[in-house]
Amino acid sequence: MIPFTVEEYHGRLTQTKLRMQQKGLDVLLITDPANMNYLSGYDGWSFYVDQMLIVSLDRVQPIWIGRKMDANAAKVTTWLYEDNILSYPEDHIHSQERHPMEFIAGVLQQLGLATCRIGLEMASYYFSALAYEKLKKSLPDARFQDASLLVNHVRLIKSNQEIDYIRRAAKIAAIGMQSAITSIQEGVRECDAAATIFKHLISGTDEFGGDYPSIVPLLPAGKNTSTPHLTWTDRYYTENEIVIIELAGCHRRYHAPMARTLSLGRPSEEVTETSKILVEGLNTAIEAVKPGATCEDVEMAWRKVISKYGIEKDSRMGYSVGVGYPPDWGEHTASIRQGDQTILQPNMTFHMIPGLWFDDYGVEISETIRVTETGCEVLTEFQRELIIKDQIDIAI
Amino acid sequence: MIPFTVEEYHGRLTQTKLRMQQKGLDVLLITDPANMNYLSGYDGWSFYVDQMLIVSLDRVQPIWIGRKMDANAAKVTTWLYEDNILSYPEDHIHSQERHPMEFIAGVLQQLGLATCRIGLEMASYYFSALAYEKLKKSLPDARFQDASLLVNHVRLIKSNQEIDYIRRAAKIAAIGMQSAITSIQEGVRECDAAATIFKHLISGTDEFGGDYPSIVPLLPAGKNTSTPHLTWTDRYYTENEIVIIELAGCHRRYHAPMARTLSLGRPSEEVTETSKILVEGLNTAIEAVKPGATCEDVEMAWRKVISKYGIEKDSRMGYSVGVGYPPDWGEHTASIRQGDQTILQPNMTFHMIPGLWFDDYGVEISETIRVTETGCEVLTEFQRELIIKDQIDIAI
Repeated sequence: MIPFTVEEYHGRLTQTKLRMQQKGLDVLLITDPANMNYLSGYDGWSFYVDQMLIVSLDRVQPIWIGRKMDANAAKVTTWLYEDNILSYPEDHIHSQERHPMEFIAGVLQQLGLATCRIGLEMASYYFSALAYEKLKKSLPDARFQDASLLVNHVRLIKSNQEIDYIRRAAKIAAIGMQSAITSIQEGVRECDAAATIFKHLISGTDEFGGDYPSIVPLLPAGKNTSTPHLTWTDRYYTENEIVIIELAGCHRRYHAPMARTLSLGRPSEEVTETSKILVEGLNTAIEAVKPGATCEDVEMAWRKVISKYGIEKDSRMGYSVGVGYPPDWGEHTASIRQGDQTILQPNMTFHMIPGLWFDDYGVEISETIRVTETGCEVLTEFQRELIIKDQIDIAI
Repeated sequence: MIPFTVEEYHGRLTQTKLRMQQKGLDVLLITDPANMNYLSGYDGWSFYVDQMLIVSLDRVQPIWIGRKMDANAAKVTTWLYEDNILSYPEDHIHSQERHPMEFIAGVLQQLGLATCRIGLEMASYYFSALAYEKLKKSLPDARFQDASLLVNHVRLIKSNQEIDYIRRAAKIAAIGMQSAITSIQEGVRECDAAATIFKHLISGTDEFGGDYPSIVPLLPAGKNTSTPHLTWTDRYYTENEIVIIELAGCHRRYHAPMARTLSLGRPSEEVTETSKILVEGLNTAIEAVKPGATCEDVEMAWRKVISKYGIEKDSRMGYSVGVGYPPDWGEHTASIRQGDQTILQPNMTFHMIPGLWFDDYGVEISETIRVTETGCEVLTEFQRELIIKDQIDIAI
């Protein structure tokens, strides 16, 4: 069952083709798995080999090309006619003699597209420098142009069905966060807490299941909260340490990320203070979200709060979020930061993540939000303030 | 705590530098997160932004360069002196104006390496075509050369400590597989089975925890077993369907993958027959593994068995496995297939995965093995034959 109507896919394609025309492109070669999913529905863990969606202005449907053993996955998960699902032979996999891009170039030639103006997703994770070189060499008469993020920009404003999936993801995120708060305590191994979180994120609710998030739960603890992207070990949690939990619920590849900071035992004064500042800043930024405001307006609201307390933060405090595959759930388009003049519009969705990291500790508290017709809706529902598990709680 | 002795890292670096000299390289820029981990210990979910390890013939330690907020993660997880941990400013993240490779080029200039012979991992997932272009433009006098898989080839023969980690991963894989067999049954949602598997893979054993595998559990069911890389949905399992379970235990980033095929209810005759052929072929291939044999010798042993039954398979039946990050646990070096003349040596490790996929069903049964001094050791321990959960079992 594809997750959207065929009409919705056609609408996305129309938007994509409009942007292609604006950029003077005849053909767009899509290698970002999130963009492949967005336009075709394709969903399989096969992005570790070369695969592609060909969008051509003169064709109604895109063409999927991937590895032979994955062609049936394309038949099952996409809305494309079987004629538009092509595959390259298995001897192209991790081969020193043959590269999938040579096969793909052959297909483009057969389609009469070898001398066209072709857009490439130059910044896509799974379009390697080698793939680029092979493609250029195999299509010497094509005129290539960087079309990174072209489809990502189409993704910026969500449909109601997409919002519905993100809402479900947000419910799953809250369940995952509750399981984290419950399971993390002195004497428990980090891996066992991570295992419990995973179980809840993947089970989801009785009504809908969870999908794998594009990033695993991030669980820095103690001094390691000074950096955000550590996962877990088999160390035991100790008394009086803080733990940052960043996770996402995911449903049909749509994400709702959320972060909270947990204190085992009474937090230090500086953690308490930093958390309060962070929540005040986050609340103020959320209040600044409304159609017509820019991303940098929202960041300014946050910045004003923290600078009142003498804190500077150079990393962005949010980014657009939606459909995604590992290694990232961010859309790489709009960021909530200085200089980003993206104008907010209804049904844009952001992960607002104002982390503050110092030399020997850090605090992260974040929400996934939707821009509404008049303001902002926070999709992730969970106690926003620093969460304290005191011995009294543990005794209960 | 870094997972290996500093001496072991030095040994890996020495091997890497030897290969660099053989290729006429002064400098190697490493962007594959598995290779970064292998040489430095670095472990964080930060590979969704540009990061790199610079190995220079004239320097004892590599230099780590990543995003500012990840520098503390490098301090915590690597064996490098803090002087060798550099970072680029946050305004380089997903920016249209600034690219991290421009910053990195500046570092190479300061180090006097801008006119050197520089090796690049052109086929690495996270070294984008755009990063390549930016780097070339910023270092017009450098002489670049493709050095894809240079470090991967160093990784091919494992140390005893690495084998120990893979052994632990294999124990975790068996626990995960048992949880899959127990939880998958008629009336259970696929996502709930996946959740249970995740929980066990991440918790690991009482003695050691699990890490996140580079690929999530793959769970095609029913007709979808005709293709290997589908994950799960919130559909309920029905009676009389087959389910392929492919998963890996992971410990300290080292993997032991394993696949089994499960039949809910009595399997069809063709599934029973295919499974028997597959196990016979796998057993025969395992018997062919010994130092001095080549990868293609092993494949030939497998091929002979299946061709006896009139089956042809064009995909490889195994590949080298070890340390890894999403999206893949394979090492991309030796493959068990025709034409691969890699000579087997003790402490090479392979995922032997002879899947057979037909139009409307498929069977996969796989093991992780180690080449020993005299033959082959199967590291993953679990009933190899088709696993049948009949109504009688369910009643128990």
